[in-house]
Amino acid sequence: MKFRIEKDTLGEVQVPNDKLWGAQTERSKNNFKIGPQASMPFEIIKAFAYLKKGAAYTNEELGVLSTEKRDLIAQVCEEILEDQLNQHFPLVIWQTGSGTQSNMNVNEVIANRAQLISKRQIGEEPILKANDDVNKSQSSNDTFPTAMHIAAYKILIENTIPSIENLKNTFKKKSKDFKDIVKIGRTHLMDATPLTLGQEFSGYTQLLENGLKTLKKSLESLSELALGGTAVGTGLNTPKGYAILVASHISKFTGHPFKTAPNKFEALSSHNAIVESHGALKQIAISLNKIANDIRMMASGPRSGIGELLLPENEPGSSIMPGKVNPTQCEALTMVCAQVMGNDVAITVGATQGHYELNVFKPMLISNFLQSARLLGDACQSFNENCAKGIEPNTKRIEELVTNSLMLVTALNTKIGYYKAAEIAQTAHKNGTTLKEEAIRLGYVSAEDFDHWVNPKEMI
Amino acid sequence: MKFRIEKDTLGEVQVPNDKLWGAQTERSKNNFKIGPQASMPFEIIKAFAYLKKGAAYTNEELGVLSTEKRDLIAQVCEEILEDQLNQHFPLVIWQTGSGTQSNMNVNEVIANRAQLISKRQIGEEPILKANDDVNKSQSSNDTFPTAMHIAAYKILIENTIPSIENLKNTFKKKSKDFKDIVKIGRTHLMDATPLTLGQEFSGYTQLLENGLKTLKKSLESLSELALGGTAVGTGLNTPKGYAILVASHISKFTGHPFKTAPNKFEALSSHNAIVESHGALKQIAISLNKIANDIRMMASGPRSGIGELLLPENEPGSSIMPGKVNPTQCEALTMVCAQVMGNDVAITVGATQGHYELNVFKPMLISNFLQSARLLGDACQSFNENCAKGIEPNTKRIEELVTNSLMLVTALNTKIGYYKAAEIAQTAHKNGTTLKEEAIRLGYVSAEDFDHWVNPKEMI
Amino acid sequence: MKFRIEKDTLGEVQVPNDKLWGAQTERSKNNFKIGPQASMPFEIIKAFAYLKKGAAYTNEELGVLSTEKRDLIAQVCEEILEDQLNQHFPLVIWQTGSGTQSNMNVNEVIANRAQLISKRQIGEEPILKANDDVNKSQSSNDTFPTAMHIAAYKILIENTIPSIENLKNTFKKKSKDFKDIVKIGRTHLMDATPLTLGQEFSGYTQLLENGLKTLKKSLESLSELALGGTAVGTGLNTPKGYAILVASHISKFTGHPFKTAPNKFEALSSHNAIVESHGALKQIAISLNKIANDIRMMASGPRSGIGELLLPENEPGSSIMPGKVNPTQCEALTMVCAQVMGNDVAITVGATQGHYELNVFKPMLISNFLQSARLLGDACQSFNENCAKGIEPNTKRIEELVTNSLMLVTALNTKIGYYKAAEIAQTAHKNGTTLKEEAIRLGYVSAEDFDHWVNPKEMI
Amino acid sequence: MKFRIEKDTLGEVQVPNDKLWGAQTERSKNNFKIGPQASMPFEIIKAFAYLKKGAAYTNEELGVLSTEKRDLIAQVCEEILEDQLNQHFPLVIWQTGSGTQSNMNVNEVIANRAQLISKRQIGEEPILKANDDVNKSQSSNDTFPTAMHIAAYKILIENTIPSIENLKNTFKKKSKDFKDIVKIGRTHLMDATPLTLGQEFSGYTQLLENGLKTLKKSLESLSELALGGTAVGTGLNTPKGYAILVASHISKFTGHPFKTAPNKFEALSSHNAIVESHGALKQIAISLNKIANDIRMMASGPRSGIGELLLPENEPGSSIMPGKVNPTQCEALTMVCAQVMGNDVAITVGATQGHYELNVFKPMLISNFLQSARLLGDACQSFNENCAKGIEPNTKRIEELVTNSLMLVTALNTKIGYYKAAEIAQTAHKNGTTLKEEAIRLGYVSAEDFDHWVNPKEMI
Repeated sequence: MKFRIEKDTLGEVQVPNDKLWGAQTERSKNNFKIGPQASMPFEIIKAFAYLKKGAAYTNEELGVLSTEKRDLIAQVCEEILEDQLNQHFPLVIWQTGSGTQSNMNVNEVIANRAQLISKRQIGEEPILKANDDVNKSQSSNDTFPTAMHIAAYKILIENTIPSIENLKNTFKKKSKDFKDIVKIGRTHLMDATPLTLGQEFSGYTQLLENGLKTLKKSLESLSELALGGTAVGTGLNTPKGYAILVASHISKFTGHPFKTAPNKFEALSSHNAIVESHGALKQIAISLNKIANDIRMMASGPRSGIGELLLPENEPGSSIMPGKVNPTQCEALTMVCAQVMGNDVAITVGATQGHYELNVFKPMLISNFLQSARLLGDACQSFNENCAKGIEPNTKRIEELVTNSLMLVTALNTKIGYYKAAEIAQTAHKNGTTLKEEAIRLGYVSAEDFDHWVNPKEMI
Repeated sequence: MKFRIEKDTLGEVQVPNDKLWGAQTERSKNNFKIGPQASMPFEIIKAFAYLKKGAAYTNEELGVLSTEKRDLIAQVCEEILEDQLNQHFPLVIWQTGSGTQSNMNVNEVIANRAQLISKRQIGEEPILKANDDVNKSQSSNDTFPTAMHIAAYKILIENTIPSIENLKNTFKKKSKDFKDIVKIGRTHLMDATPLTLGQEFSGYTQLLENGLKTLKKSLESLSELALGGTAVGTGLNTPKGYAILVASHISKFTGHPFKTAPNKFEALSSHNAIVESHGALKQIAISLNKIANDIRMMASGPRSGIGELLLPENEPGSSIMPGKVNPTQCEALTMVCAQVMGNDVAITVGATQGHYELNVFKPMLISNFLQSARLLGDACQSFNENCAKGIEPNTKRIEELVTNSLMLVTALNTKIGYYKAAEIAQTAHKNGTTLKEEAIRLGYVSAEDFDHWVNPKEMI
Repeated sequence: MKFRIEKDTLGEVQVPNDKLWGAQTERSKNNFKIGPQASMPFEIIKAFAYLKKGAAYTNEELGVLSTEKRDLIAQVCEEILEDQLNQHFPLVIWQTGSGTQSNMNVNEVIANRAQLISKRQIGEEPILKANDDVNKSQSSNDTFPTAMHIAAYKILIENTIPSIENLKNTFKKKSKDFKDIVKIGRTHLMDATPLTLGQEFSGYTQLLENGLKTLKKSLESLSELALGGTAVGTGLNTPKGYAILVASHISKFTGHPFKTAPNKFEALSSHNAIVESHGALKQIAISLNKIANDIRMMASGPRSGIGELLLPENEPGSSIMPGKVNPTQCEALTMVCAQVMGNDVAITVGATQGHYELNVFKPMLISNFLQSARLLGDACQSFNENCAKGIEPNTKRIEELVTNSLMLVTALNTKIGYYKAAEIAQTAHKNGTTLKEEAIRLGYVSAEDFDHWVNPKEMI
Repeated sequence: MKFRIEKDTLGEVQVPNDKLWGAQTERSKNNFKIGPQASMPFEIIKAFAYLKKGAAYTNEELGVLSTEKRDLIAQVCEEILEDQLNQHFPLVIWQTGSGTQSNMNVNEVIANRAQLISKRQIGEEPILKANDDVNKSQSSNDTFPTAMHIAAYKILIENTIPSIENLKNTFKKKSKDFKDIVKIGRTHLMDATPLTLGQEFSGYTQLLENGLKTLKKSLESLSELALGGTAVGTGLNTPKGYAILVASHISKFTGHPFKTAPNKFEALSSHNAIVESHGALKQIAISLNKIANDIRMMASGPRSGIGELLLPENEPGSSIMPGKVNPTQCEALTMVCAQVMGNDVAITVGATQGHYELNVFKPMLISNFLQSARLLGDACQSFNENCAKGIEPNTKRIEELVTNSLMLVTALNTKIGYYKAAEIAQTAHKNGTTLKEEAIRLGYVSAEDFDHWVNPKEMI
């Protein structure tokens, strides 16, 4: 491997010749060998590309950057967005907590790549200076939180929300398809009064609807960008009008309605929006866990379980038990949910420990956020396509279970009172008989009235 | 102690003569000796009083309950709300997960107390039947979640939100009072560029503003009531129009804008609103922890710490170190924050495990919610009165620290570039000299320019 | 209410005449109105009584306290341990994070109570000084963590561990009682190969055995006492030999093997032992949640669930559904488990944030620990007495479910290979037939071999 | 891309020609597109290699597998351990919760690779059958938890524990180097009595010592292997003596003291050992967070913070503030700690939800465990090399801060009593004078006595 010499304010560093990064990236690479290489999420690198381009346009417009420099910066940013420079971002999550080194990684790559585009050698007088030009009117302290919001907003809009919507729509369709299937209800896991399978699925639809509502409410907070605060929130070294203008450029380039944050001191020192929005992801995880759990319990069997639902048979379920098929999509989904619940605590712990003007758990916070958003999106997509869409009722079994239930007796409450109804149910339970038999034998209800009053189809 | 015999569907039970509860309460008291007695929060008992009164009015209006019975029920509910019957609610949080036994406790007390009001003996033919009259058109499965929402909504509106608002207003006032106090900024705990103390406090204001916004957004979800779903969400045994009407009665009696939940299956089987709203409490706890931590760090000393703030001296701080005074309000507040973060996980774990038509972690969920809401409200009140309002700047110390800082060099970036500015700062750091001395010695800036360019007051 | 004047180093305070506390307690009572009054756990007050008595004996033995003073202190400590002075401890958890004010509360009550015992007036020249005599050779910083360990150790030994042991022994007995009951196994909630009900209960026994092992391992850490470190760990103002001697006195008075901590700097600034030991409580909660969940699923029904187990019918289960009985002990237990999991995070967050020489989340840490220990102990006791002991198998149902299962085909793997076995199971599943029918029809196994090879009783 | 046809019990699947996996792996790859590809940790794949080899040796020894087949299996396992087959393991964490598909991935790769080694074509009559030979005497249900324990044990012994030990040893060395440096102590972040810097570092040493003790205690639980339980814990389809023998083979091949688990029902259905051991990792994370936080606070400055410690200057700290250097290693480490705390909750949630005979959160559990173990190991290594070893005291600053402190007054408690000592300190604080001046002025102590009694060096 061949090397060149790069410099920063601490001195000289050797950098591999075929890499576009500079001295600070190389230092970080060597000083933070923690976990797998290049773990900083690419969503963040790309968010930086939008941001650097937005800053360049703003700086040019406000007269502090030449048009030539602006265009060079913008060109490299486009290359980053097109995945052409991926190999030049080797840094890890577990670096400085401000993400300074990833900001500098982007600055350095843009500056060095601009040399090549301009037909210069890296090491010659630079056409762009990483700190003075690419990072102009910026600090890591306002760029990294801005990149966090861009990346978070984008993944929610482009992956998480549509995937959850799709699953919700499948449940909505099923709730219509199943609207006439009367089944036993279960409370405390015990037989209760009947409802329709469609009603159950309408509950799942509502659960996701509620979660989506909370999640979408959080988008407004995520749309606020810290950029313009620079080092501590005061906006030192930015031209007048910069904060509002740069947000509008980023908004234009990304197609999402970003705006400048109302208070930059809060925006650097804390991560309310990430906390709020991940709270919504956690809420959705709680609901999905409940839904997936219910579905696998209702599909349990095939012969010695509940057996009310039939799930698609996607793969052999056991390396030892021949013919076994398992609710594997439910399992993948609930594992994802557990992960999201854990990530919520990692985010809580990190967001809690901001000191003074800067929270320095930024890379950890955003990597957990993006993992949750991506996993929930992917898992909902997978669950929807490979399980939810194919769910079918086992109508024979469903009818058998509802007909046997002692809890149909509840319909008699308003006719003969709770106590006599209870006596009927308890006696039938003890004797292994039917409600009707005991209702008549106890003399509380006539056969005719019983048939009239106790009808699962009218108890829903 | 004297006893009477009470009955339920499982048979006879001895109940102390001077207590108004009945058989099911007594059974629960004996079967669940877990933690301190009577731990079910009184907010829940009182929410039940609103609910039972609302149900009685609705049942009467819809023609399924006599006016006499309605008025008796309403009268006892008023007594409960006035704390006259507190000793008759002995049950604990750790009972059945649907809260059935607390619902029955209320039903039984109302029925028995109505006997006394009507000049009858308990044990005589009851004027009100616990299940058939007091619980008419209800199930534990829809009443308990309704009581949860009533109690949660009320405590947020009456305690939590106003207390946080008060603290926010104090910070807002301080941010104005301190608007001209220029101090050093700190990022990564290290000296950074200056800002005003007022700007720091504006960040705290914004943090609480954001948290309150999220919290208030959750009120809408909490305003939705499950009542009308009865056993499994179908509304079995309720008269037509019941759900909407009962919500409007409860709304009238409580003065809060409750309405019926759009989907009762979701409202019984899950607790989205509690999860969402407690997520907002957790978000606020994260912010309060950061604020309290910053304040105690800035107040650290008095001689060997940071020493920029002076906190009220409320009590002697040490049993061994004479004259010591500590930031005790910060400590109480951050302990509360840690508790809220833990409670959020308890709620997550409980909300995750709903089965089929009913989540049976309800008493645990609401007791954690109410504890968080109450502790945050009380702690903000205490912190505001005993600490925040009395915070004063140590202006001499603040000025001393900002004047010494090497990070004022940042103002030179746009004049001489990042690299030369860094050289000045590093040299001054190494030599223990001032920026100005080194700037001149290195020949990068004249004394006059330095004084003109490097002025903390203009860096904010 | 009548008042007297008490003084501390900050000046005078009015204290109710009938209360034994002094100025610092009164200040704390007024400055920390957070949550319910007197919430500081009494286990901590009593642990302080052991500690103060131990310190008095040690100080006397080492020549720095008179025998008369020692005996007075010891006498009041005995009164505290006998619950005679409970009304004099009004402070809350949410006070200073070192617990200084509860230490002073104890010091003040001992000093004032000693006045009365010595026939003096409170306010006269004190026979014992709260700081100089009762608190001699101590600081809040080493007494509060010592009280934490004493209280934690005692509750584990006296409540938590025996209750869990009792439950474990019930499971052990059941595993013997049920050793010949062959039932279907379930993996992924789906039918799997058989095992005995006794084997399932042996798994529960082992789960608790493992948890108890971890918990008992943590006792050694809890047995280490911080006392002797005083303010910052150096032991300033203690006589020579104090630390070891005071631990041995406390050990003698409590009957538990306490010893002095090897490093007092760690013992004041951090709470490893609490974290470790609560980690074990969380591990047990995880296991109990799994066990209670399995039991309620196996007991689900009575007609439309799994129905393999019969649980004691302790109370009517529903206010609307007559005759319903629910697995309420499972619900109380799993709610407790969720609480313990939440408490673990509160402890994590608090233990994480120690600063320099002192962690100031102490009252929050110990109150969560004690709640977890108490709730787990009580809930295991309740579950054991009211549920576990009375669990009976529904043998008819169990046999029916195991006989039907297609997974008995696994026994054929070693005879005809996994693929042919799978074909048999899949065909029987598709056709709704038995394994035997299809095995013969496909020509893979003779009827005789089938009966010989596929025998649930020999698959366990 | 060219494909071949592979079959399993559900039918035919197309598999890329250049890949060694089979039908079930391919199905899983298509059915679970969740998160990044191939995310199943390689530690698990390698643990399977040890396990499959151990099973082959055991099966051969017990007469149910030919020596030829054993050697083929063993040969491919060696290739896996040497990283030669990495590209053939494409599956993700978020698959079936039993890890069945990763078990089958290994079985399929071994079977297909054996074809090539034996100079056969894949698709011809197989020399090894994936289910019948490679998976002989095994089920996913006992192999995956076995692989979890192998992987967890190995990473702790080979990475996590040695890295933490190294850091502990550095702290131990520093505690000796700094044993004579007297500095101010701080409690509640406020000035307290002095101690030595060496004593502070001895506290850090003890913190890690305690954590390591808990972690090592958990190794015994991790050493217990589920293998031999097969599908539900009964050991169906294993030859006699298999469980003990296979553990001893694995022990021999890995060099670690594995043994068979005492109860296989527990070992499949729950994950006590993972919970226990990760609890120890969390305990260590709590300590490391405290240590890193203290160090960065003591190193804060350089001019306007505490400034008692000097940390190595590894990289430029700011993209906007020239000359800034930050405690970046502390930041990476505390971010890792927050992640571990979050992972602990993910593990808690997953471990809680085992159903019946099998917990199906296995891949999620182990991926969190391995991430925590790896990150803690790597981060301790990085922190040790790049920060801890280079920590130096700023002796001038340390001395200045201790000399000024008012808390030296504590030394007077035993001479003049707590109240007079407090008066001296409070007066000096109010007047901005020294303790000595006020002690003399108030007439409580002579100058000579003061110098004799109040000596920081004798207060440690």
